[in-house]
Amino acid sequence: MADQRLPASYRCGVLTLSDRAYQGKSEDTSGPRVAELLREQGFLTVVETILPDEEALIAALLRQWADERQLDLIVTTGGTGVSPRDRTPEATRQVIECEVPGLAEAMRLSSLRITPQAVWSRGVAGIRGQCLILNLPGSRKAATENLQAVLPALRHGLAVLRGRVLDCGQPD
Amino acid sequence: MADQRLPASYRCGVLTLSDRAYQGKSEDTSGPRVAELLREQGFLTVVETILPDEEALIAALLRQWADERQLDLIVTTGGTGVSPRDRTPEATRQVIECEVPGLAEAMRLSSLRITPQAVWSRGVAGIRGQCLILNLPGSRKAATENLQAVLPALRHGLAVLRGRVLDCGQPD
Amino acid sequence: MADQRLPASYRCGVLTLSDRAYQGKSEDTSGPRVAELLREQGFLTVVETILPDEEALIAALLRQWADERQLDLIVTTGGTGVSPRDRTPEATRQVIECEVPGLAEAMRLSSLRITPQAVWSRGVAGIRGQCLILNLPGSRKAATENLQAVLPALRHGLAVLRGRVLDCGQPD
Repeated sequence: MADQRLPASYRCGVLTLSDRAYQGKSEDTSGPRVAELLREQGFLTVVETILPDEEALIAALLRQWADERQLDLIVTTGGTGVSPRDRTPEATRQVIECEVPGLAEAMRLSSLRITPQAVWSRGVAGIRGQCLILNLPGSRKAATENLQAVLPALRHGLAVLRGRVLDCGQPD
Repeated sequence: MADQRLPASYRCGVLTLSDRAYQGKSEDTSGPRVAELLREQGFLTVVETILPDEEALIAALLRQWADERQLDLIVTTGGTGVSPRDRTPEATRQVIECEVPGLAEAMRLSSLRITPQAVWSRGVAGIRGQCLILNLPGSRKAATENLQAVLPALRHGLAVLRGRVLDCGQPD
Repeated sequence: MADQRLPASYRCGVLTLSDRAYQGKSEDTSGPRVAELLREQGFLTVVETILPDEEALIAALLRQWADERQLDLIVTTGGTGVSPRDRTPEATRQVIECEVPGLAEAMRLSSLRITPQAVWSRGVAGIRGQCLILNLPGSRKAATENLQAVLPALRHGLAVLRGRVLDCGQPD
């Protein structure tokens, strides 16, 4: 019974990285869609923001959300490609203590079944304290597909991070 | 003829990482299963040990097994997840000279077909001198599945490491 | 109309890494095959060279081709395995500013469907300035298979690198 009510308590932030959306030159349709998908899974989205593709700004906000707002999960969208302004993976690597490469691999693997262009997303996933940070691509379609690829796994990992369940990695 | 007798000469160590198994609070069923699978492939398992999830201890033992005992292969099980005590990948990265990312990718890919939770294993594989070090998850089931995913490839790689065959990477 | 003529303007270099081929003890059949595949896609192969497996030499040539010759794409073949002389990934990491892990993952994933030995290629892909550098295995067969796995994606990524198209990673 208790376990079934836990998911709602995971607190998430959604961060959109896009110079154009930040300047109001294009609409951010990815961030709201990501937040919607998280809420459908019973997560609590407590903050949604747009930043330009500035590595230092992104890293600072990730730190603040993880450390001060004590979010369980931060999902970013945008800035993962190979254009010179795409710096989300670099900003994320600055702040995480360890990578969880399987999350990024699973997202790209899933995307590769849809488009060969999936190879260009350099998104990473990793842990800062008890907070999981997950980079999604910037397009609404790719962000949706990537998040859906790992959604079934998120709840368990967040529970392990919070010390709420034994890691499945313990010898049984 | 000689080639057919070579595999038996590969000397392996199996290292279980688990605070609970080390303290005798749970039984290590993964380590013995990993050793059994290796022996079934004609490998020689010359040492099996359990350590707690202490990065420094793990790194020290990996160095000793690779350098002094001159093992060809060290397979670890446990400590690859995202709980704060899981430090096997970090200990392994401390001692390897280069990663072999394809091994970890192939293991996670294989596990993903079984469970979406496969994304949480942060296990790495890499080379120290002529020794291959391979991190498996801690559960008996996941460790078995992960090892089986790469067993067909191990013999060739170990032969290349020992300089017994030309690398298949040479232009033909 | 203009877009259809763009691909021909991408300037590529093909670099074979092999002690034996450099010394004339074996024929380099991989490099010419890679160049042929690139030309079939409308790329311009402006330089093809063989170097021995020397990390410093490889890194120096990659820098020269990217910075002075201003190539759009450098494809290497050879030196990605686990024999002590295989240093192409290390040389590549020295010179790239960021990795594009999806390219290496997609190549290994594709190879894994053909042979379990695909796990041993440590090839990386990454960006230096506006130049993409891509490591392929050394065997003609594996190099061909790996390159074919990512060829459908290359044109788009090179266009993004040159600032010729908006990154698909922008929110739509």
